[in-house]
Amino acid sequence: MRLAHARTADGDRPVVHLDGQWYDLRPLHAAVTPAVLGPDALAAIRSASLPAVAEPTEFAPPLTGIGKIVCIGLNYTDHAEETGATAPPEPILFMKAPDTVVGPTDDVLIPRTSVKTDYEVELAIVIGSTARYLASPDEALAHVAGYAVSNDVSERTFQIERGGQWDKGKNCETFNPFGPWIETDVADPQDLELKLWVNGDLRQNGNTKNQIFGVAHVVWYLSQFMTLYPGDVINTGTPAGVAMGRADGQFLRDGDVVELEITGLGRQRQTFRPA
Amino acid sequence: MRLAHARTADGDRPVVHLDGQWYDLRPLHAAVTPAVLGPDALAAIRSASLPAVAEPTEFAPPLTGIGKIVCIGLNYTDHAEETGATAPPEPILFMKAPDTVVGPTDDVLIPRTSVKTDYEVELAIVIGSTARYLASPDEALAHVAGYAVSNDVSERTFQIERGGQWDKGKNCETFNPFGPWIETDVADPQDLELKLWVNGDLRQNGNTKNQIFGVAHVVWYLSQFMTLYPGDVINTGTPAGVAMGRADGQFLRDGDVVELEITGLGRQRQTFRPA
Repeated sequence: MRLAHARTADGDRPVVHLDGQWYDLRPLHAAVTPAVLGPDALAAIRSASLPAVAEPTEFAPPLTGIGKIVCIGLNYTDHAEETGATAPPEPILFMKAPDTVVGPTDDVLIPRTSVKTDYEVELAIVIGSTARYLASPDEALAHVAGYAVSNDVSERTFQIERGGQWDKGKNCETFNPFGPWIETDVADPQDLELKLWVNGDLRQNGNTKNQIFGVAHVVWYLSQFMTLYPGDVINTGTPAGVAMGRADGQFLRDGDVVELEITGLGRQRQTFRPA
Repeated sequence: MRLAHARTADGDRPVVHLDGQWYDLRPLHAAVTPAVLGPDALAAIRSASLPAVAEPTEFAPPLTGIGKIVCIGLNYTDHAEETGATAPPEPILFMKAPDTVVGPTDDVLIPRTSVKTDYEVELAIVIGSTARYLASPDEALAHVAGYAVSNDVSERTFQIERGGQWDKGKNCETFNPFGPWIETDVADPQDLELKLWVNGDLRQNGNTKNQIFGVAHVVWYLSQFMTLYPGDVINTGTPAGVAMGRADGQFLRDGDVVELEITGLGRQRQTFRPA
């Protein structure tokens, strides 16, 4: 099942995709919010009789009211190597503010003083029920409502060369394109292909099977340090191929077009513009 | 003017303190939200005729709907010294999730595996209007709605010894006691005394005049990296005296009582309990 917000001439509206057909979700919910992500609410959507709608031509972010976005750093061996880092012994954690989220085809703004704006295709986990001090990774997937595509846009100078913590390069406005939809039915989150192109050139081509810490481990691990609530999002790290790791150092410039997709989770396309 | 949420037997209610009297804010607003913090909304509150109420005996967090909490690290020379760090050349930035916020007298939970839970009294800035690429620090204070007390509770093992970024030790549940109120009328934010006691023993005794980067500089600086929206909160760093900086290493334990206050911004009191 896909949960999304369709952009229409009359504004954004919640939609759901089931058995090959899109449906209007408004008879049940005014928007896809954290309350829609719990097991009971998802079951009610599956069994509801909803009006069919045409396939959306444009999407807004698929979730309203994200509480926090937790990001995992250096979570693919090949990406850790390209940045010159060693694989971390336990997950590295940083944060993005929910106000960085934009739709999957919205423009991304290059910060005014930026010279190193970079892309990162990532599998995003969307939490469906509260996870707090989980006893083991075996309990983790029951707290996941679904998965989506995130572009964890990053400014490398701000992140690494401007004193201290990575968050400084991760929280610029528009820096988290998200969607097009949340997919609740993913058979194996550790077997998804991730691809990203810049101006048609394939730059990232990875698979979640190469994550150092998989989805269940990450959710369990985070729950030891913080409480995860419905509607929280976890960006699980990016595979190799980011501009920072390339010898030609091709960071993003005005007019560049970035496209990204993950198996079953849809495709994003952003034009990068000056802030 | 103080904006707050009083805890009453009938639930939390928005209140305002003007000219020595507390008033019920409900005729104008159901809660103190980011929309209440703009200049026009604040002016409307000042000129409204509201029903007087008794002084609240307990407070909830004074703001509902915080968008993000940005924190400044090592922002007092004496605190930088006690942690063994040199004074940073530009502000260090990290994040706390809004779900860490609790009221000023709520219990704080010591994480289950914690051995180094620590306190930090901090001046919190509350943003009133959007700040984006401000041209100079001179423009910054016009975007500030008011100030409040924050306890930037921190787990030092998680923050420093568990791989990478500080956020891991800053986002445990209940780790940001906030309030009791937002004070909109602060004559000079760089002349406020900050004090913190543990079980009656004065541990921190600082003044915002010793901030390395003052309020105006911090707001201007952050606006170059991210957009600040109404209802965003900035914790501006802590003066010397945290447990991490003490030779006796007295971190917080079950039953410890932490009290803190800042000139004109009220007083907090938390009992620390096991999570």
